Order: sequence, then structure tokens, then C-alpha cells
Amino acid sequence: MNAPPNMSDPLVLFMPSGKRGRFPKGTTVLDAARQLGVYVESVCGGRATCGRCQIEVQEGHFAKHKISSAKEHISSPGPREARYAEKRELLPGRRLSCSATIEGDLVVDVPQDAIINAQVVRKDADSRVIERHPAVNLRYVEVPEPDMHHPLGDVDRLKVQLQKDWGYDRLEVELHLLPEVQKILREGEWAVTAAVHHDQDEDAARIIALWPGLKNEAYGLACDIGSTTIAMHLVSLLSGRVVASAGASNPQIRFGEDLMSRVSYVMMNPDGRQAMTKAVRLEISKLVDRVATEGGVERADILDAVFVGNPIMHHLFLGIDPTELGGAPFALAVSGAVKARTDDLRLALNPGARLYMLPCIAGHVGADAAAVTLSEGPHRQDRMMLIVDVGTNAEIVLGNRQRVVAASSPTGPAFEGAEISSGQRAAPGAIERVRIDRATLEPRFRVIGSELWSDDPGFAEAVATTGVTGICGSGIIEVVAEMYLCGLISEDGVIDGALAARSPRIIEQGRTFSYVLREEEPRITVTQNDVRAIQLAKAALYAGTRLLMEKQGIETVDVIRFAGAFGSFIDPTYAMVLGLIPDCELENVSAVGNAAGTGARMALLNRNHRREIEETVRRIEKIETALEPKFQEHFVHAMALPNKVDPFPKLSRQVELPRRKVLAEGGTQAPRRRSREEREARRRR
Amino acid sequence: MNAPPNMSDPLVLFMPSGKRGRFPKGTTVLDAARQLGVYVESVCGGRATCGRCQIEVQEGHFAKHKISSAKEHISSPGPREARYAEKRELLPGRRLSCSATIEGDLVVDVPQDAIINAQVVRKDADSRVIERHPAVNLRYVEVPEPDMHHPLGDVDRLKVQLQKDWGYDRLEVELHLLPEVQKILREGEWAVTAAVHHDQDEDAARIIALWPGLKNEAYGLACDIGSTTIAMHLVSLLSGRVVASAGASNPQIRFGEDLMSRVSYVMMNPDGRQAMTKAVRLEISKLVDRVATEGGVERADILDAVFVGNPIMHHLFLGIDPTELGGAPFALAVSGAVKARTDDLRLALNPGARLYMLPCIAGHVGADAAAVTLSEGPHRQDRMMLIVDVGTNAEIVLGNRQRVVAASSPTGPAFEGAEISSGQRAAPGAIERVRIDRATLEPRFRVIGSELWSDDPGFAEAVATTGVTGICGSGIIEVVAEMYLCGLISEDGVIDGALAARSPRIIEQGRTFSYVLREEEPRITVTQNDVRAIQLAKAALYAGTRLLMEKQGIETVDVIRFAGAFGSFIDPTYAMVLGLIPDCELENVSAVGNAAGTGARMALLNRNHRREIEETVRRIEKIETALEPKFQEHFVHAMALPNKVDPFPKLSRQVELPRRKVLAEGGTQAPRRRSREEREARRRR
Repeated sequence: MNAPPNMSDPLVLFMPSGKRGRFPKGTTVLDAARQLGVYVESVCGGRATCGRCQIEVQEGHFAKHKISSAKEHISSPGPREARYAEKRELLPGRRLSCSATIEGDLVVDVPQDAIINAQVVRKDADSRVIERHPAVNLRYVEVPEPDMHHPLGDVDRLKVQLQKDWGYDRLEVELHLLPEVQKILREGEWAVTAAVHHDQDEDAARIIALWPGLKNEAYGLACDIGSTTIAMHLVSLLSGRVVASAGASNPQIRFGEDLMSRVSYVMMNPDGRQAMTKAVRLEISKLVDRVATEGGVERADILDAVFVGNPIMHHLFLGIDPTELGGAPFALAVSGAVKARTDDLRLALNPGARLYMLPCIAGHVGADAAAVTLSEGPHRQDRMMLIVDVGTNAEIVLGNRQRVVAASSPTGPAFEGAEISSGQRAAPGAIERVRIDRATLEPRFRVIGSELWSDDPGFAEAVATTGVTGICGSGIIEVVAEMYLCGLISEDGVIDGALAARSPRIIEQGRTFSYVLREEEPRITVTQNDVRAIQLAKAALYAGTRLLMEKQGIETVDVIRFAGAFGSFIDPTYAMVLGLIPDCELENVSAVGNAAGTGARMALLNRNHRREIEETVRRIEKIETALEPKFQEHFVHAMALPNKVDPFPKLSRQVELPRRKVLAEGGTQAPRRRSREEREARRRR
Repeated sequence: MNAPPNMSDPLVLFMPSGKRGRFPKGTTVLDAARQLGVYVESVCGGRATCGRCQIEVQEGHFAKHKISSAKEHISSPGPREARYAEKRELLPGRRLSCSATIEGDLVVDVPQDAIINAQVVRKDADSRVIERHPAVNLRYVEVPEPDMHHPLGDVDRLKVQLQKDWGYDRLEVELHLLPEVQKILREGEWAVTAAVHHDQDEDAARIIALWPGLKNEAYGLACDIGSTTIAMHLVSLLSGRVVASAGASNPQIRFGEDLMSRVSYVMMNPDGRQAMTKAVRLEISKLVDRVATEGGVERADILDAVFVGNPIMHHLFLGIDPTELGGAPFALAVSGAVKARTDDLRLALNPGARLYMLPCIAGHVGADAAAVTLSEGPHRQDRMMLIVDVGTNAEIVLGNRQRVVAASSPTGPAFEGAEISSGQRAAPGAIERVRIDRATLEPRFRVIGSELWSDDPGFAEAVATTGVTGICGSGIIEVVAEMYLCGLISEDGVIDGALAARSPRIIEQGRTFSYVLREEEPRITVTQNDVRAIQLAKAALYAGTRLLMEKQGIETVDVIRFAGAFGSFIDPTYAMVLGLIPDCELENVSAVGNAAGTGARMALLNRNHRREIEETVRRIEKIETALEPKFQEHFVHAMALPNKVDPFPKLSRQVELPRRKVLAEGGTQAPRRRSREEREARRRR
């Protein structure tokens, strides 16, 4: 594209990127895409054998012209393309961009799902399409045979050919391949497929694997190492599809339920760090087996792996002692993105497979928060977006294209059901939904594992296997919110003992009162201390959010995203009733499930996303709540239910109205039904 | 140096590089050197604590000025420099360039031996001074402590500080360091020394090791893996000095004496390659122990390692099957330079230590020949230089600044004493020097291990322990040349049976005659077959040389260098008498000993030499003798003793004269005495 375009040349528009340019008639669509920097997959390099470069030609308007018949503007399928379509099947409307040439103005759609091996593809819960530009690509080449007049080594001729055919500037070769190259070249009769890793920051690319002949499929892992759960996706690097997913409990739980107890374990046990590193890597390896088996994939075909996790999971996975993260100044050993070979962690994928860990934002805001940020993209939009990921700490990110700020707020584990008298982790048998009749103060509830309410016929049978074991995070939020809406709790969080006269469920316990949610054994009550714990947690979360809003100089946010497991299960209405989150149009509040996993998949499938999140994390302003005097002030105000109005003198009518509506209608909305995938994810927990 | 220099600023000339520039008064000499690209070592970064940046200020003329007193033109030692001199000793005339400032015109000498730990330095045989610019440097930095307001990880702050203090563009960190960084930073109270590896071709540098506080010494290995002998030097990366050297037999000898028998072993035994790779790596590891012990150095302080070897040794060391090298087209698995971590070969140096192998030139011309080329530098000069390295094959390199050509010629093992009736490898007891009395035809000889001639008094006692066991390569060349000079052999190589009448040493054996060099047991004779074997070998060597001379279009060479063990022991006079090498002024013919080892040291100490040899090898024109019809023709001509004149019609008088002189005086010159080091090297063999 150095010469100025000839204005009589056809104009080609690529979708969804929107890139456009003029090209002489006869240019292949693939060449045009390359010249414009549009990523179109290709393994065979234009030989019409891999079928990865499929595109669709759209009919319709384009610029000022109406393209009456797209067919006239693209070449008819030639013999090579016809042969491919015959042998491998090409969906109607699909063309191979390496063979189809431009003959007139065109709108070209680059589908992100050039499916080759249909049998291994399955529909995934999170079907977000990620534009692909992976760090690892398959490159087919035909290498000249050895020549005594020009005694370049086999590897060196392979490099030269790859540079020539695929435009690489500099190429390195992994040491472990050197003993294999000669055999592979001869087995493939001088035709081989190389897996080439190209880091987004480096000039040099690197040959990491090699196969004889045409290799037309390669995979990557996206893995979110949570303190409780490890979730893994096996993804085709060529089609972008999720081929298999699996989750497992983090085996480190046996060393300590929450993060701080794991840090303590390391501090108390000389080989504690090592034991936990080994445990998590072993579990990850088992998960690899599971997704590989499910996807019908060899471990050796997995060439890239992206991991995310909170700072302590991140450190333990990498074999780093997390002790420094246990106290101020919460120094990360490494905050930048980590790049390595998976072999260095003995993950037993392809020997040349690469590992990438997203950067950590701060000592309490890890690579998982970075992945959520990448997934939701506050930095990619103009609206002011609040992202909340609640665990033992809440990670809070607030920002837009101009500026992003982040903080961690010490909510404590109340939202996870800990420190609550009848609390438990979200697991089958835990109460997750609660409604209290405004008149009778009688409750009804639902437990994880059943779709029935406790007053539905057949409830007892439905929960016979799990029982009703306790109350989880979303349940405790709903019951406290419902108690508040019924007037059982005052604005300052006191359970009103006077109501004991109206309902036997209000009982005196020492100097305070409790609400009996379930009378049968195990008896489940909400005590004054439980309410206090929730107040403290929500005050911390809200104060952190408020602090970031102040940093941004804003009074309202445009969009709220709840990330993580907790976020998936709480009802945003109740979160707003209790004042966990600032006012926002309800339609703009949503749970984003395992957004960390989605962010990991994005970094896996598109190396530009790696650069994007590294730059974004560098730019994010990190707010340490412990160092901010205003945090305490906000915290005190936010102890009230829902929140004291004083910090928000300028709440606009536009925002206040839906809030009132929520308050008025609170409890009447049916909680949304969980999708099948959510239920499955929950069952794995 | 972006601003134009102020012509009134002092002019500074750095020696030996000759680089010069003007700098404002008060500029430190170190800063001036850096701005001119003059490599001056520095670990502490200008804190006057490491003492590595020593320079000398010369008196004398400079440009058109006479610098009457250099002292006036450089600052007086300040308190920091004085403190260093007091604590660590600074030789008279030496200054620390980081503290001394320019106050007037100066000639600065950059010594290549800023000795810090004098006790570990020893004089080495090959005392060539190599200008240093190593791939691995020690860099002292003071890292800011963690800051909750800017929660960069410890590693990330280390990187930022290294970039700031030392001007690195991009820095990566080895994965294995991540778990260590926090401990080391705290142990050093935020002052640490990093070892930074900077590949000559890459933008990014890489932190490969880290120590608390100031680390002021680091080492590298230069190792030549010969088929027979492995030679290793341990070198200070900071002073350039060879700290210890050691040699050992290549344990692969038990799998096959020569290269081809080792290839056969691999072809015949499924685990043959593995066994030989293991054997050579083990022996190298033992050598590391020896040099480390001798030098008083920890293995963990060895940070870089350069290896050279012929293609088969190169492949076996890297774990590559050498079978392809056993037959045409002699395809190397890899010909370019190999870069890796020594840990990938389990060499147990510092876990971050780097490995560099020089490129191979062709299937028979390996990284050892590349190292010899680097050492002798035909490509760096205008004279036409011939380099000959004789083993089972002779590697021949011929060229100058304009053009370099190379070939391998199939001399066979005769020069190594194999295929000779009484032949043996050069080892104690082997005859290495022979003189035959022109009149009586009586011989006298010397054996390896004794300085006495066989007719000297006390010879019998001197060789009592070794005995006289056979005749080695240099001995066989001398005896054949002497036989020719005495008229015992005709120009076509036939032993003259008629002389049996004159001397009982001429004996009939079947249809040919032999010369009895030693009558006692073991009887040592030179048979007609022996003469033929030498004729074939020297004809091959000469024909290869001649072919290259033709490619270059030249009739004579300016300089001849004999590399390798064989070259060290033969007498150039006899080599010329026999016609092994073309005519050349005798004073320009020399043995260069282990030039491959020297080339390895150069690549170790100066990364620019790595680029230099990679570029040179790419440029070298490789001639495959087997594909050149003229080779056979030259071969036939060169069977004669010394060589048939016809191919050289234009031999100038200038060249012919010294040749006649050699022929006339042949045998009268005393062979040069071997240095102590050579004798030691020989004893190790």
C-alpha cells in the first residue's frame, strides 16, 4: 500500500473491522486483507488446502453504491477452491480468501469460526466472539532440500522459507526442536507445518513446534485460578471456539480456606509454599487431561496457555512465596505480565508451549481483575463503568476511555457466607433466595440445587439429598434486604425487637434480637451480628466505590458489572437496595459471570489484547484505601441501610426514580432463572 | 553527542580503539567513553566502589598538541576515588573513569585487565588481549522500596531502575528468578547486582541472575569440543583474564576413535546418540569442576558459555543425531549460531547462564573452523590468508577482507598417524621429529616427552618410562620429507630399492621397499604404503587449497596459519618441503595452536564478535570439493613430491627463492622449542 491507490480500482470493505482499501482487480482477498492489517487465519499460505481463510461476501449497500450482485465482483471458484469444497465441505456463501480474487467493489465478512473439524466444536456458555490474532500461529512451508553448494542447515533453510513465505523478520528456534527437525522434514518430504510464537513486544518470532506435512489444528488454554475454584477452557487457536471447559476445586483449600490463611500456612511451614504450588499445578494438569479428553485433543497439540488469578494465586502458581502480600506494603514480587514456557512449570503440554499471565494491578488487585477489565473494557468506551468483583476483598475498577482507577476494599468474607452464624459457601443446600411476606413476616426461600421455593409443593422431596444446610452470600444479602424492606431492620441496622409481638420469628438472644429463617433443624437464624457483618462488608464495598467515584469526580456511574461467582448469583436489585453499589439504571447493571476467564481467552486468542491490558494496567491509577483518609468517612456513612443520603446531595431525579421503584417493588420481581451453564458451574463448585 | 561539539572543549582520544571526541570540562571519563561507544567495564554504575572502570592517562603528543603534563588535564582524585584506592589498591597511574573528570585534552588508555581479585588471576599461554564487550554484564542498582501508592512489583521496580541507570530499552526476567527476587532485594537492603544478558541481535535484554549488594566478579566458559580432546577455559567476564584452563579426552572415543565411526555407532545403536551426548556433557561438567576448583570459583558464578566443535561434535553435544552428516549431502541439522540456556543442557552452571555455539560453515566445516576464522580474522585484513586445520578432514579457509572461501578436503587420518604401519596418535613415546643423514642415511629422532635426540647421551634413560611406541603425524611428515631430501624417495613417491646397497636400513618387503627408522623392538619402519598414504593425504590437502586459490584467482598466499593440535607440532618447513601447503614466505607461516579456543574466548568476551562471525560465515563461499571436477585434477598433480610444477607456471622468483632455500637447508634448522604450555597440553592428550 505504498503507492497511492488508483481510484478506479475496486474498493473493498472488511467487516467487522471496518477496514477498507482499493486493490487492483485480480488481487486475492487474502492479500488485500493482509495489506490492510485485517487478520485472516491461514495455515497453508494460500495453497487452498487448510481452509482456514474462509470469508463471506456480503450483498448490500456499500459507500454510495449499491452492490447489486456480489457474485459479479468476486472471481468464480477456481479448480483449487472447488477441490477443497469437494473434499472438505465449504458452507454455502463461504469462499477461500486465498483463491477468490477481487473483481469489483466488495463487502467481505471475516467470520471468526472457520470450522474445519466440526466434530470437536461445541456450543459454549459464553459465546462471545473474540477477534483472533493469536500469539501462536501454524505456518505451512515447503522447504528446499539440502544443497551441498549452499550448505545451510535444515533448520536454517526452514527459517529462510518461513521468513520468505510468511514475512517474518527474525526467527529463533527452540533448542528442544533441533534434534527433531531433520526427522520431521524428511517424514514430511520437505513439507512441514511450524508453530510460530510471536510475542507482541518482540521483533523476533520463535519456532516452538514442528510437524510433518499440513497440521491444521492447534489449541490453547485459558485458565482462571481462583482461591476456591479453578476454571479452564480449551480453545482452538485457529477457529477461536471453546472446545471444552472444566472446573475443579482449588486443592489449596486444604491448606487454608481463604487467602490469608494460605499466606499464614506458608509463613508457618517451611515447605508450605512448595506444597501449595505443587497442589495447584497438579490440579491444573488434571484439568488439562479433562478438557483434552473431552475435546478429543492431545496435550501435545496445546501450544499456548493464559493464566489469571488474584495476586496470591498468581504467586503460588509461579512458585513465588506470597508472604509479602500478607502485610503492608503488600509488595508483589512481579506485577508485569509474566511470559515463560509452560515446560518451566512442568505443565506437560507441547514442549514448546508458551505461558502468559496477565499483569497484576496492585497487591490486592490481581491478574484476575486485569482479565475482568480486559473483558469488560472500561478503557474502550466513553461510558463510566464500575466493575465489582467480590471475594474476601472486593476489587473495584472504575473508569472509561479517559481514565481508569482501581482499588481493593476489605469487605471481609461475609459476602461469601463466612462470619455469618448460619453462613456457608455457595454449594448445594445453601439458601440463595429469600422473600419475606410484608404482612405476616413469614419467609420463603430457595436453596442451591432446586428450582422450588420452600413453600412450593414437593420442596421437601426436592432437597432431600442436599438438605438445607445454611445460607450463602446471595441469600444473606436478600434476607437482610428483605428484613429492611419489611421494617424488621431499621436504617441503622438494628433488628426491631418490638416486632416480636407480631411474629414468633423474632426472638430475643441476649441483648439483641434474631430472625428465624427456618425453624426445623438445622435451625437457621439471622442474628444482629449477621446484620452487622453484612453492614460492614457492604460499607467497605461502597466506601471503596465512593472513593473511586470521587477520584473520577463523578456522582453516578453509567454501567455496573458484577464479576465472579458472587456477582453471578446476587440479584442486582437487592444489591442496590442494600446499597452495595451506587445508583444506576437497573438495565445497565449486570452480572458478567467468569469475566476473568473471558479476559484470559481474549489474551489467548489475540496478542493485541495482551499489549492492550499491559498498557491499560500501567495507566490504571491504583488507589490504596488504607492510605485514603476519606475512605473511613465514606465507610461510616455507608453503614446505614441503604446508605446515608448526605454524601450524595445531588442525586438526580433521573437516578432517584428507578431507585424508589426498586425500593417499592423490592421482592416482587422474580429472580432471573439461571442458565443451564450457570447451574452446571455451580454444581461443580 | 547530538549537539555539535564546541571546538573549545577538550579533545579526548581513547586507546586502543582510537575513538575521539570533544567534551565539556567536568565530564567524567566514563561518560565520555560511553558517548563514544568505547566499552569501559563498570558494575557499580559510577559509585567508585567496583573499581572496574580503571583507565590510564597517557602523556605524549596528541593531534598537533603536545600534552606536556597529563595531570593538568584530568581532575585530581576526589574523596570517593581516594577511598577506593585506599581500600582496594589502585595501581600507579590508574584512575577510576567514573570519578576522574576531563579538564583538558587527554589520551586515555583503556586497559583490558582491571584486576580486582589479584589472587585468582594467572598468566595464560595464549595471552592475546581481547577487547571486551560481553553478552553478560553485571549491573549494580539501588531499587526504590515498595510504595503502596505505586504498587509496581519488586521485579518491575528493579527493571525500571536498571533501565534508568543503565540505559536498557526493554528488559525481560527469567522465570526462575521470580521466586528469588523479593528475598534478594531485602537481603541487599534494596541494593542488588543483576547479571543482564544482552544478545547482539535482540532489542530486549534479560535479567538472568541477581545478588544482594555489589557483586564484582562473574565468569564464562570457552570450550572447544574436539573429537579427541575437550579443552576448556574459565574466563573472568569482567577482566577478560583466563582464570583456569583444563583439557580432557573426549569420552566418546570409546564409541569410536574417529568421527565416522561415531556416526556409525549412532546408526547401529538405537541409544547410541543419547549415550554419546551424555558422555560428552558429563565430561564437560567434570571439566567445569576442575576449572572452577582451580580458579576458586563457584559454578553458580559462571554466567555464559561458548562452545565450538566440528559438526559431529556440535550435533552430539546438542543432542542431535549426526547420521545425516555421515553421507551426502552432509546436511547439518542447524548451521546458524545456537543460543540457549545452559540449563537446557543440564550443565549446572548458574541457573540463568547462557549458551552460545558459533555457526557451522558447512557439513564438514564446523563451528571450530568458524572459531579459528574468528581468531585469525582473514576477513579483517587485506593480505590473503590461508588457514589449514588438519584432522581426519582438513578444513581450509582462504580469504581476505574482500572475500573468503572455505572447503573441507578428505585427507584421511594419515596425518594423525592412523593408516600408517607404525603410526599412532601424538602421545608420549611417539616419534615426532626425524633427521636423516644425507650421506649415511642413518636417522636420528625425538619422541614426545623428551627433549633429547635418539643419538644424544642419556636418551635411553629419558624415554625409559614411555618407551618409543610409534610415529605420530609430525614425525611421519618429517621422515617422508627427509627421505625425499636424501633421495630415498623419488618425486613420484617410490622408495628407491637401489639404495639398499648403500644402507641396511633399506629393506625389501614383498615387491616394495621400506626404510627402517628404528631397529630395536618395537621395530619402526616406513613402508611404501606409508609413503603412499602421506602422498594421498597431502595431495588431498593441497588440491583443496589449490581449488580455493583458483576460486580466489590467486597463485600465492600471503599468510599461512596452521590451526589445531597437528598444526602445533608439524614443522612448517617440512610441510612446505612435502608440498602440504603452497609456497609462502616462511616467516609468514605459523602455527596458531588452539585457535578454535581463542575464537571461542573472543565470542565469550565480546558479543560483537558473535555478530562478526555470524555475518562472516554467511558470506563465506562454501566449496564442496566432491562437486568440483578440478579437484581431481589438482589431486593427481599434487601426488608428486613436493608438487608437480605444471599447475604453477608463474611462480615468482620472490617465492621460489625461499623455497629453494628451504629445500637446500631442509633438516638443518632446529625445530622450535615448544613452550611449557604446549608441552602441558600435549601431556594431557
